[in-house]
Amino acid sequence: MKYPLTVGAMMEHAEKFFPKKEVISQTHDKLHRLTYKEVGKRTRRLMSALDKLGIEQGDKVGTLAWNTHRHLEIYFAAPGIGSILHTINIRLSPEHIIYIINHAEDKIIFVDKDILPLVDKLHPHLPTVKAYVVMTDKEELPENSLPNVYSYEELLQEGDETYPFTRDIDEDSAAGMCYTSATTGKPKGVLYTHRAIALHSYALGLADTAAISESDVAMAVVPQFHVNAWGMPFACTWFGSTQVMPGPRFTPKRLATFIEEYKVTISAGVPTIWLGLLKELDENSYDTSSLRGVLCGGSAAPLSMVRAFEQKYNIPFFHAYGATETTPLATYSRLKSYQQDLSPDERANEKTRQGILVPGLEMKVIDENGEIPWDDETMGELLLKGPWIADTYYKDERSKTAFIDGWYHTGDVVTVDEEGTMKIVDRTGDLIKSGGEWISSVELENAIMAHEAVFEASVVAIPDEKWDERPIACVVLHDQYKDKVAKSDIAEYLKPQFAKFWLPDDYLFVDEIPKTSVGKFLKRELRKQVLEHLNLA
Amino acid sequence: MKYPLTVGAMMEHAEKFFPKKEVISQTHDKLHRLTYKEVGKRTRRLMSALDKLGIEQGDKVGTLAWNTHRHLEIYFAAPGIGSILHTINIRLSPEHIIYIINHAEDKIIFVDKDILPLVDKLHPHLPTVKAYVVMTDKEELPENSLPNVYSYEELLQEGDETYPFTRDIDEDSAAGMCYTSATTGKPKGVLYTHRAIALHSYALGLADTAAISESDVAMAVVPQFHVNAWGMPFACTWFGSTQVMPGPRFTPKRLATFIEEYKVTISAGVPTIWLGLLKELDENSYDTSSLRGVLCGGSAAPLSMVRAFEQKYNIPFFHAYGATETTPLATYSRLKSYQQDLSPDERANEKTRQGILVPGLEMKVIDENGEIPWDDETMGELLLKGPWIADTYYKDERSKTAFIDGWYHTGDVVTVDEEGTMKIVDRTGDLIKSGGEWISSVELENAIMAHEAVFEASVVAIPDEKWDERPIACVVLHDQYKDKVAKSDIAEYLKPQFAKFWLPDDYLFVDEIPKTSVGKFLKRELRKQVLEHLNLA
Repeated sequence: MKYPLTVGAMMEHAEKFFPKKEVISQTHDKLHRLTYKEVGKRTRRLMSALDKLGIEQGDKVGTLAWNTHRHLEIYFAAPGIGSILHTINIRLSPEHIIYIINHAEDKIIFVDKDILPLVDKLHPHLPTVKAYVVMTDKEELPENSLPNVYSYEELLQEGDETYPFTRDIDEDSAAGMCYTSATTGKPKGVLYTHRAIALHSYALGLADTAAISESDVAMAVVPQFHVNAWGMPFACTWFGSTQVMPGPRFTPKRLATFIEEYKVTISAGVPTIWLGLLKELDENSYDTSSLRGVLCGGSAAPLSMVRAFEQKYNIPFFHAYGATETTPLATYSRLKSYQQDLSPDERANEKTRQGILVPGLEMKVIDENGEIPWDDETMGELLLKGPWIADTYYKDERSKTAFIDGWYHTGDVVTVDEEGTMKIVDRTGDLIKSGGEWISSVELENAIMAHEAVFEASVVAIPDEKWDERPIACVVLHDQYKDKVAKSDIAEYLKPQFAKFWLPDDYLFVDEIPKTSVGKFLKRELRKQVLEHLNLA
Repeated sequence: MKYPLTVGAMMEHAEKFFPKKEVISQTHDKLHRLTYKEVGKRTRRLMSALDKLGIEQGDKVGTLAWNTHRHLEIYFAAPGIGSILHTINIRLSPEHIIYIINHAEDKIIFVDKDILPLVDKLHPHLPTVKAYVVMTDKEELPENSLPNVYSYEELLQEGDETYPFTRDIDEDSAAGMCYTSATTGKPKGVLYTHRAIALHSYALGLADTAAISESDVAMAVVPQFHVNAWGMPFACTWFGSTQVMPGPRFTPKRLATFIEEYKVTISAGVPTIWLGLLKELDENSYDTSSLRGVLCGGSAAPLSMVRAFEQKYNIPFFHAYGATETTPLATYSRLKSYQQDLSPDERANEKTRQGILVPGLEMKVIDENGEIPWDDETMGELLLKGPWIADTYYKDERSKTAFIDGWYHTGDVVTVDEEGTMKIVDRTGDLIKSGGEWISSVELENAIMAHEAVFEASVVAIPDEKWDERPIACVVLHDQYKDKVAKSDIAEYLKPQFAKFWLPDDYLFVDEIPKTSVGKFLKRELRKQVLEHLNLA
């Protein structure tokens, strides 16, 4: 029958079939434990409040918020009345936040207590916003100069807990929206349809991907303001998982404590988060035996990280790959049944790969000669299509450079082996061309990060008269190794692993690698710093 | 992006990402082992053959066949060129088979070698069929009088192994078709869209339903001519499971042997199949330790069966529920995380329930007063809607009695507990009304079948002047108990379990319970026999 896939139906499923299961949410002031029955009622109250405030189908509902139950309620309430959940990255510059809100024409903004001062400053530049809602546990709102400001909890108190989810929605209409934190230029907006979110949630529930289940205690560390926390809040609600939300300004200590205390079974985050967690686990003792998996995405995890999780802490490690434009899950790394008897090191090595395509999508890898062979050597750009892949940026001229002939051009350079397992080797712009040959900055970085003294490393190209470009490595040492490790130590360590022309011309010890707001290496900025340092700028 | 879900894409995914995984298929003459790479090529050859034979988009491609790799290839080749896979139940009467083929207007019929004699007799009555294809391992076709008859393997030899799957298909167009083996009147046809099959396959892959995975060795015992073998061939191919196909006229011995030999991890079938397998396991010794689950549907499994699998053989038992009209998976029984410490008997009892709704569907249970409370006591008819629920019978006036206001009326009477877990208590027509109260024939049957002497039992209503209707039980004893168990033994056994007015008025020992072609009790026929026996007819 004609029956649209809708986000609202997912919350209704949780209300009916998982009414006793819980959402555990850390806010600024306290820890909340709510059942899906309660979260469902609160979501309905919120829908009635949005309705009363004049939010209509197709309107954008902006959020500037951490991972909490309130943010989760907006995840379902906004699409539940046919409006669009627009999560805004709180770490962007004020200029970009203003640009995004104006470009999306947000009608209402939900803001967490500690982000209120920022919004308070920006609001004169936000003419489309008709109302602000502050999310706080306190009865009194913090001081502010916002016009039309409401308390989240007061709105809910006045709301109707039987308000219905709108079901006569075209599944191809937008339910969500997120802007990429572009490294150059203005952020670019991506719309997520009801259909895309529902199908993507199925993909997260498959036994061979994240296998999100009722039996899970899931902690998404990846922010809810970043590509829907990789879709975890939607899938976990639909499938009845217990959800643990680390809330504002969490520390590695809080993550480790929550894992132990709530017996977290699966957690998802970027490599930077896992580096921090590993450091905490090294320094203090925690019971992490409940974890059936740690999901890593956003950037490539180095071999040393995979090894630490799998071999030192016995925590299965899963690489996933995607982008804002892909909702995001596109590939998932899991050994095949006939690869189970690999040695621990082969296994770890295999697990640094980004995995095979999730069922439902299509991929193609091309270079200047067309589709590359799947020989694990030839490099090409990854192209994707499928029902949860975007086909345009929201009202943006730059769409035509990324979406061509029905394919999304990811800008990621990959190799593929005969199993169809994909490995990111670089960004199209970050590959280094030396003497007519390609050098992968990512492979060099991962090799350097496998050195025990190294905390992080990034490799960038500098111009070279003879070779066109040459690689330079920037290295952050662990505290205890500072001043005890020399450039030559790292150079010697790399030598046996690569062809000679791949080896970096120099190693610069730095205090940190500049990163984007979502924890990816900001290579453009790093390259600028390197060029200045070498007096080449 | 606009991207249709198609059946062809599922086989392409297997070709690319699971090329080495195998399909193990027993035909009449030999055991075949083919990789998905080979099955993919053969499917493409078959598509080019269908094309050459003039099969066009929307044409019906009929099959009269067992579970084999060739049948699997047709599963993908027919929808792969936009035509419709029409699986025909080989156990139906010749009159019904003729009706079905003419009603569907099948253009071509694929027939297994041993079903050829039947088709040979029917063909003068099949004016729409332009070609017949015989599936056999032999070079020579068996003698027959069919016009335009082809050898499957010869067609493939002449085919093009690079023939492309058609992708520009409306996902709401039909990919498959199956007629219900109705207990009264002519069979009714149901169309399955590409969208329905793809979404249903996702549902089968979810961690909390069948969790079909690359690591599975899956043996669908449920016939491929019956509701797409519950969708297993589609899901297993898409997700890269090894598939084991028991082929024509399999025995419980073959099933047990295949489980041991190929380390089957999951198998699916109706209670009759599992009764046979249990008998075989009781009589001979097999290693069944590879099984992570046995999936049961079609009819309610008695408690004794659940106990035998879970407690005696340590094989997890999963009830699923669905119908031809529901593709079929609608509910799936799996204990929730907080139910894991039930005692073995509580657990077995819970596992006789049909489970909770699969994510993506909607259910409603109604009686004459509207929606019933979920109190585990009140009975009502189950109504379903969702993207893989049919909304009509194919060109059939009877649609309007089953599909009302957007809901499919299943005709199944159920109770629901506060967990949302559903239990079938009867068919709407089979409930017994005695003295104004409802008696569930299914609950009585299950209780009788829990008696160690009982192989099968069925309860039907006979007219009664005083009470309107009264229950009569028909009981098949295990061979070793025949003539050793009296009516009073069964009666005494039931007494403490039910209210007095529920207890059957009589127990008739019979040699077998008449069944439909798919193994369900044929109560209408049984009731007729009982009435004749009691001289009430």
